[in-house]
Amino acid sequence: MPTSSKKVYVDGVPMREITLAGDNPPLRLYDTSGPYTDPAYTVDLKLGLPPLRREWIRARGDIEPSRVGLRGRPGQRVTQLHYARRGELTREMEFVATREGVDPERVRSEVARGRAIIPANVNHPESEPMIIGRNFLVKINANLGNSAVTSSVEEEVEKMTWAIRYGADTVMDLSTGKNIHETREWILRNAPVPVGTVPIYQALEKVDGKAEELTWEVYRDTLVEQAEQGVDYFTIHAGVLLRYIPLTARRVTGIVSRGGSIMAKWCLAHHQESFLYTHFREICELMAAYDVAFSLGDGLRPGSIADANDDAQFAELDTLGELTQIAWEHDCQVMIEGPGHVPMHLIRENMDRQLRICHEAPFYTLGPLTTDVAPGYDHITSAIGAAMIGWYGTAMLCYVTPKEHLGLPNKKDVKDGVIAYKIAAHAADLAKGHPRAREWDDALSKARFEFRWEDQFNLSLDPETARDFHDETLPAAGAKVAHFCSMCGPHFCSMKITQDVRAWAEREAGLREKAEEFRRAGGELYVPGG
Amino acid sequence: MPTSSKKVYVDGVPMREITLAGDNPPLRLYDTSGPYTDPAYTVDLKLGLPPLRREWIRARGDIEPSRVGLRGRPGQRVTQLHYARRGELTREMEFVATREGVDPERVRSEVARGRAIIPANVNHPESEPMIIGRNFLVKINANLGNSAVTSSVEEEVEKMTWAIRYGADTVMDLSTGKNIHETREWILRNAPVPVGTVPIYQALEKVDGKAEELTWEVYRDTLVEQAEQGVDYFTIHAGVLLRYIPLTARRVTGIVSRGGSIMAKWCLAHHQESFLYTHFREICELMAAYDVAFSLGDGLRPGSIADANDDAQFAELDTLGELTQIAWEHDCQVMIEGPGHVPMHLIRENMDRQLRICHEAPFYTLGPLTTDVAPGYDHITSAIGAAMIGWYGTAMLCYVTPKEHLGLPNKKDVKDGVIAYKIAAHAADLAKGHPRAREWDDALSKARFEFRWEDQFNLSLDPETARDFHDETLPAAGAKVAHFCSMCGPHFCSMKITQDVRAWAEREAGLREKAEEFRRAGGELYVPGG
Repeated sequence: MPTSSKKVYVDGVPMREITLAGDNPPLRLYDTSGPYTDPAYTVDLKLGLPPLRREWIRARGDIEPSRVGLRGRPGQRVTQLHYARRGELTREMEFVATREGVDPERVRSEVARGRAIIPANVNHPESEPMIIGRNFLVKINANLGNSAVTSSVEEEVEKMTWAIRYGADTVMDLSTGKNIHETREWILRNAPVPVGTVPIYQALEKVDGKAEELTWEVYRDTLVEQAEQGVDYFTIHAGVLLRYIPLTARRVTGIVSRGGSIMAKWCLAHHQESFLYTHFREICELMAAYDVAFSLGDGLRPGSIADANDDAQFAELDTLGELTQIAWEHDCQVMIEGPGHVPMHLIRENMDRQLRICHEAPFYTLGPLTTDVAPGYDHITSAIGAAMIGWYGTAMLCYVTPKEHLGLPNKKDVKDGVIAYKIAAHAADLAKGHPRAREWDDALSKARFEFRWEDQFNLSLDPETARDFHDETLPAAGAKVAHFCSMCGPHFCSMKITQDVRAWAEREAGLREKAEEFRRAGGELYVPGG
Repeated sequence: MPTSSKKVYVDGVPMREITLAGDNPPLRLYDTSGPYTDPAYTVDLKLGLPPLRREWIRARGDIEPSRVGLRGRPGQRVTQLHYARRGELTREMEFVATREGVDPERVRSEVARGRAIIPANVNHPESEPMIIGRNFLVKINANLGNSAVTSSVEEEVEKMTWAIRYGADTVMDLSTGKNIHETREWILRNAPVPVGTVPIYQALEKVDGKAEELTWEVYRDTLVEQAEQGVDYFTIHAGVLLRYIPLTARRVTGIVSRGGSIMAKWCLAHHQESFLYTHFREICELMAAYDVAFSLGDGLRPGSIADANDDAQFAELDTLGELTQIAWEHDCQVMIEGPGHVPMHLIRENMDRQLRICHEAPFYTLGPLTTDVAPGYDHITSAIGAAMIGWYGTAMLCYVTPKEHLGLPNKKDVKDGVIAYKIAAHAADLAKGHPRAREWDDALSKARFEFRWEDQFNLSLDPETARDFHDETLPAAGAKVAHFCSMCGPHFCSMKITQDVRAWAEREAGLREKAEEFRRAGGELYVPGG
């Protein structure tokens, strides 16, 4: 991080402050990077992050020790939705209000209404509270996690810190390989952002990968294990019903959600309704005891342009709407997952339907990818759809990396995915008219117009890359104060010419004003006795 | 290019044909790469490309030798618009019709109506005809050209061949440094795509970079020089009027168009209306004699989110609408340049206004960039806006490379810019419901679902990158036939599970059918005498 960019705390809420040249006021930006970017903090991955929220949680007096960690006392729902509905302003809500620059009461009422969630498991006190809702800044999620084929625990933790450094608001640990519990523990203890998982992956490992051998008991125990560890939200594919499966038969790409396909296999093997659906109220009770938020999974999302907005997808959405109301009955926080692969002209329908069917619960979409033809560049095919659906009202955008469809992302892919999605989310904030969003663009453009190269770099989403690209052709220090760059050279710099034009127009205006004064004074060349 | 992808000619029109495994029919794609990808063609940059259109042009009998090259006989307008209005189907129109898969009469009528242009200077017979109009495939342009600070002629020619290989439909030579004539000559003689320029750049070089010393005569001679060389379209900033300049005074980034700022400087220095505007009819006559198309420049386009859709921008657009009709009076082909930096919610207004004010002449936009905060990633910030405005009706998208605002693009930047824009253009084609567009996505997604890895790579917009990314984690040849990839591993591959589910459902259906037959046959376990 450049020296002109430093971490500051406003009422305990971290922000990144960028100092600018001249009389330009410093700019403060939302900061997801956690204590890692605080020079006063000594990183110790074995120790984990300080438990910021521990005292807030204890002070509420509604929890008790569990087998591992904490849980709500019997009959107590320890969710932010529960508190919000009771009219209580929690410390988490206050933190979020400062972070977003809005009134705390607005935070509370949006949570109470179910239009926003604050994922905050009582067993993940290390997390800095954040809010997901369409009346707040658009958020992004970065997926991490190893598979049976590749990558180690250390790598995944490093990818997590890399993701939040560039702006990931939450991370999901989608590990499916060995050491699934241990990987998650390392990520949770070191993540200052909420962590989501798809518990069915671990449940499946427990039955040796045989979907038909999954049981409600194995799944329930997995939920408890992960809730005790501190996972902040669970993706649960409870909307994949037995009768919806035939709707996917004629699809070009069938079922592309891992969780969705596992549950489809189970339903068919047993000729029974999904246990996620039949046991949904028990799941709600369990999640309310830890404040794990629901991310109702879209197991039947389209995996290709051909399959977008089809009967299977929308049938499942209807069920997610029904489940949203059941979860709310239990004071559980809920968001709804969305597609996937959708051509631009069909994106709006996804948003409008979701709001209607799911009673305005926050939408959380994967892209959508707006074409299938560019594997290797799906961070771009999907950033287009993500920006649009973010503008239309999606609250959180799940990133897609350049490796999508081809392999697991490495560190560079994680960065590229996060940057593409920060762009999409910020473009959406601008289009939604978020007052703070414009400040950033204006500060950067003003720096650009005034040839404040260092300020321009420091204000960039990725300062290092902006600086490196500039220096590739003009590395000399003198070029950083030059009134041109290598794109056009000195003669053709429109910004330089405009400045000349402007200075000249002002001079002209000054001359006219002097002439005017002269006329007013009598118009004589020499004012007698003047 | 992989061996399963080969160049084919349909009635002389080049296409890329991709052979697929099994009984999947081959897919033919639009091909901008020119003879370079024809193994039967021997590249010789000194010789230049074969003059495909020379005989077509001669056969029309309306041209004569000029000082250099050809021009229309006195009084003859040799433009595609002229022919189209007379009801003539030119060879260029037929070529385009085959290329786009549409009826030739549709091509003619769209050109006659001014809704599409076929940039085709009589002195650039090397170009393979293409059409720019919103009822055809969305096109992309790649900017090339050196500045005083950097890059050589060879590099620019190499960037051109690189750009068309990945799909650039036209290129613009924006050189401003030394050897401006020579660079252009090399590009023109080797470009199978139309070439555009901004003639004011060369005119300014002729007066040593002093905008106030520009004259109509210097500019006119430059137009003639470039028209004789074969430039297919000229960006002319004739809409920057003296009275519009004060409208830019309070902008965050003033005037960001190089041509616009040069003309603004000239107007202010002389306190006169722009010579591009006052001599516009002479320019039309000149361009009609070679069939150089107008690209009416947006010299007052916004250079920041703050300046989008302001009075200056829309005042200039009004003038471009007026000039469009004058150009059409002279049978000149016209497209209109558009912004720039525009937040998503203001993009639609740009398109709607342009269509109305400019009488549906094709729109040709630079992006637009949907945020200012990501220098180093402006191919992405702008691909979002480009895809959207392409869907709304923009006919050609001018690419933006990752180096925008920071330096001149190198070869990799050119490729990254072209790929991002092919994605945007194709996403727009899909959203517009272009029948051929969907074929490509469906073929790729079907290959993906069926684990035809080689087909998936070959069908990709960038086959090498798709293959490299896959091989990064699973390089073994066996992985290319594996029914999973490194993303999920074998147990968790949703596509594999779906195939299992589908096979199982079919087996079940088969069993049911057998049971049904059995019942129909009388339901006896052994059919007596059967």
